[in-house]
Amino acid sequence: MKILSVNAGSSSLKFTLFEMSDESVLVSGVFERIGLDNSFYTIKLNGEKIREDVELPTHTEAVQILLNKLIDLNIIKSFDEIKGVGHRILHGGEKYSDSVIINDDVIENIKELTPLGPLHHPGEIAGILALKEVLPEAIMVAVYDTAFHQTMSEDTYLYPIPYKWYKEYNVRKYGFHGTSHKYIAETVKKILKKDNYKLISCHIGSGGSICAIKDGICVDTSMGFTPLAGIMMGTRSGDIDPSIIPYVMEKEGKNASEIIEDLNKQSGVLGLSELCSDMRDLVSACDEGNKQAILAKNKYVRRIVDYIAQYYVLLGGCDIIVFTAGVGENNIVIRREICEKLSCLGVKIDLDLNNIRGEETKISTDDSNVLVYTIPTNEELMIARDTLRLMNR
Amino acid sequence: MKILSVNAGSSSLKFTLFEMSDESVLVSGVFERIGLDNSFYTIKLNGEKIREDVELPTHTEAVQILLNKLIDLNIIKSFDEIKGVGHRILHGGEKYSDSVIINDDVIENIKELTPLGPLHHPGEIAGILALKEVLPEAIMVAVYDTAFHQTMSEDTYLYPIPYKWYKEYNVRKYGFHGTSHKYIAETVKKILKKDNYKLISCHIGSGGSICAIKDGICVDTSMGFTPLAGIMMGTRSGDIDPSIIPYVMEKEGKNASEIIEDLNKQSGVLGLSELCSDMRDLVSACDEGNKQAILAKNKYVRRIVDYIAQYYVLLGGCDIIVFTAGVGENNIVIRREICEKLSCLGVKIDLDLNNIRGEETKISTDDSNVLVYTIPTNEELMIARDTLRLMNR
Repeated sequence: MKILSVNAGSSSLKFTLFEMSDESVLVSGVFERIGLDNSFYTIKLNGEKIREDVELPTHTEAVQILLNKLIDLNIIKSFDEIKGVGHRILHGGEKYSDSVIINDDVIENIKELTPLGPLHHPGEIAGILALKEVLPEAIMVAVYDTAFHQTMSEDTYLYPIPYKWYKEYNVRKYGFHGTSHKYIAETVKKILKKDNYKLISCHIGSGGSICAIKDGICVDTSMGFTPLAGIMMGTRSGDIDPSIIPYVMEKEGKNASEIIEDLNKQSGVLGLSELCSDMRDLVSACDEGNKQAILAKNKYVRRIVDYIAQYYVLLGGCDIIVFTAGVGENNIVIRREICEKLSCLGVKIDLDLNNIRGEETKISTDDSNVLVYTIPTNEELMIARDTLRLMNR
Repeated sequence: MKILSVNAGSSSLKFTLFEMSDESVLVSGVFERIGLDNSFYTIKLNGEKIREDVELPTHTEAVQILLNKLIDLNIIKSFDEIKGVGHRILHGGEKYSDSVIINDDVIENIKELTPLGPLHHPGEIAGILALKEVLPEAIMVAVYDTAFHQTMSEDTYLYPIPYKWYKEYNVRKYGFHGTSHKYIAETVKKILKKDNYKLISCHIGSGGSICAIKDGICVDTSMGFTPLAGIMMGTRSGDIDPSIIPYVMEKEGKNASEIIEDLNKQSGVLGLSELCSDMRDLVSACDEGNKQAILAKNKYVRRIVDYIAQYYVLLGGCDIIVFTAGVGENNIVIRREICEKLSCLGVKIDLDLNNIRGEETKISTDDSNVLVYTIPTNEELMIARDTLRLMNR
């Protein structure tokens, strides 16, 4: 059975088409600059990349072009071969602790949750409506990035702030990257061949979050009310003293939202290094002896280590630490430096085994107290799997 | 030699007079409501408390009344017996990594640092000027609450925010409670009878901070740019997702400073329990089964454990954990719950030994991997000691 996994943004639509009998990728790609000029799409097929400039006034044209292209390329013979579509949705609030088949109520709920995902939900809704129009018979499933974290306990997800802010305004920790952390948890279960395990999942890419998982269930995670919180990221600060906001507002003559924008887009690795947000570039600059790059790298490593330490104690020890996403899967230096700082917990990696990129591999030594793995994440597949699971229910 | 230790606020002046030959307290007390109506002072002498209503238009009258009272009470025969006065100053910025003898430049610097300590510095300056007027011959010393933390490394004290905010606006981690953490470090050195030790100092009172100390030197601490950051406190939130600020501003129709005020005064234990900010009252409410109290207590314990875990790994293990200040010295339940959550690090306390209040005692078992102590802090004595040290230089 063919299932389409969709991640729609306000001006983009990423897709992957899976054949679920063997979970193989038939085709993947992205439509960019929807609603803007110079719009185009790229498709990856059999290792080749096709790029075409097209007019994309709305998400609907993107979806129509996509489906026609799939027929042109002989990937499908008719639209109705695509039986299911899984949509990545940022925020499920407290309502959704699992993926759900999309009906009118669900669409209404995603609209209602827009204040919690103002940058994401409008594009996601546009994606759902476009697919519904072009594939009216397909079963659509919403896969929430927050759902996996809904198992956190009350004393974990509540902030020490006026309780009213939670009851009336829904301010609490939600956590994000749930689809990725869940994929890692499922993969770890297969690797360890057991249901009971303590896992610290490190999804570190341009965004990043750490997740404490016990027996497949999320216990805590580093992102919070929004994806700004937690560890230091490419351009995001992560946790800081909240008093900084009004202080800098006055200095810079900006309002609070503009400062939050700076904390999201001008901070993290970019803010501290004043050089780049990409960890590959940063590590190169470190090799060249750039002091501010070294500073940013050390801070980046430190904040991840801080969270691993917290979660190690929270879980009462840890069986396995997993690195995933762009930096986690590929950055040999960052993985090594993180693990070296964890040596007092008995974490020990093998420098030869660690010398890999983008593979599922054990990188810890045999005498390490904690297993350490790299596992490439696959949110698209996880979305397709969830879609299939709900179709079969 | 007699040294006066002073902690002046905007409308209060606390004092302790020490005889430094044996570090004994001759007298202590506080002047309250300076510049307001219904002003008064209380003095503690030989276990008795004297209270008197007096007019206190400015700090100068408070100091004059104090000195005359010391003569009346036969504690001193003349003003010039007080050779030194140590002043607790909140913020030394990056300029002061140690206490300093106060001259006109130092006073000017404290004034210049007012933007970093807007609620504290005006009162502290008033205290210095009042003492200078009444005791012109005494040597005055400024003891900064931030100074002990100036040894933090750059990658510890810098936030992952635009670097300009540090260079131009001095936004960085400063840390507070430095005088208390330094006192604990000195006491631990005497207890362990060695210079090399890894210490996690937990100053938990109505405010609170955790400090990682190696060989007497501060490596990291939980408070930040301001005393709002770090662990959850009586009425302060500690670290939260910064995005909460503009979101709640809109919901509550408040400006950013008002939200920070809420995070300082309506949050923490009070905010989450909706009951009280005092840990004794909270633990009583927990005993009665109050669910929100239990929630607040669990969160409070958790945030402290999170920081101890971070610092354990940062220090590469830990020789000794110390509890101090109101909660740390006196709250048997909170100490026990913190230590229980640290069991995976080999921390083990003896429930009988832990059954004490306000004493310097080992509370860990003999087979604990980490020593655990309660040590009553003594910031007043530390201020007097620093004053004597600088006078003797």
